Amino acid sequence: MFSRIDHIGVAVEEIEPALELYRDRLELEVAHREVVEQQGVEAVLLDVGENHVELLAPLGADTPVGKFLAKQGPGLHHVAYQVSDIDSALRALKQAGIRLIDEQPRPGIRGSRVAFVHPRATGGVLTEIVQPAAEPR
Amino acid sequence: MFSRIDHIGVAVEEIEPALELYRDRLELEVAHREVVEQQGVEAVLLDVGENHVELLAPLGADTPVGKFLAKQGPGLHHVAYQVSDIDSALRALKQAGIRLIDEQPRPGIRGSRVAFVHPRATGGVLTEIVQPAAEPR
Repeated sequence: MFSRIDHIGVAVEEIEPALELYRDRLELEVAHREVVEQQGVEAVLLDVGENHVELLAPLGADTPVGKFLAKQGPGLHHVAYQVSDIDSALRALKQAGIRLIDEQPRPGIRGSRVAFVHPRATGGVLTEIVQPAAEPR
Repeated sequence: MFSRIDHIGVAVEEIEPALELYRDRLELEVAHREVVEQQGVEAVLLDVGENHVELLAPLGADTPVGKFLAKQGPGLHHVAYQVSDIDSALRALKQAGIRLIDEQPRPGIRGSRVAFVHPRATGGVLTEIVQPAAEPR
């Protein structure tokens, strides 16, 4: 069902110090940067081979990532698995009895389609599935 | 420096219910299983393409994973990046001023060599680097 780890999501207070770490010191290349008003985050994708690190900085305290930071501080936020067909993957997850946050895919960054699985269904791990855009922006 | 995400480490209370989720319902193939007395864990590696999910169950409450579970419950524990030469990667990390837990590599599961970076150096993300064995057991 999953072809690879698409990315790990890392919650950070601010993008710039995180870029200083991941881009400048760990030497990962920035692939994409996008403000997603609807989700209340600024997101930066960095390449690690065919996988990515996704830095997530909240646009305000009253956003999901803002609340995460207030509760447990910066750190690992979620893992995302890549699928080639998110509609069939969601059907398969439902058939396997796995509780979903998103029953239908919604727009992700870089033209992707994404859906979140409920962390109670995955042992406390916030889990996303991602179908990349055919031609990522 | 990093060629891919080697694995995400997931802290679980018990291996069997986690296998029921990752192996049976999410359909990931089990690649390896090992008790690491020295680190106080039972570890199971499952394949996700060329990446892995590493399930970590503590052998007792007074182990690093046991303490993690007591503090914040089951969930994402660490991320590991793959390197081809861990000795030169550790030198590069030190040169970049990144604080390490392990200045020298130590044995990981499946014949790998691993080292942990200090989470204070990586924005709260417990980060491991892994050089796989030439021929994984």
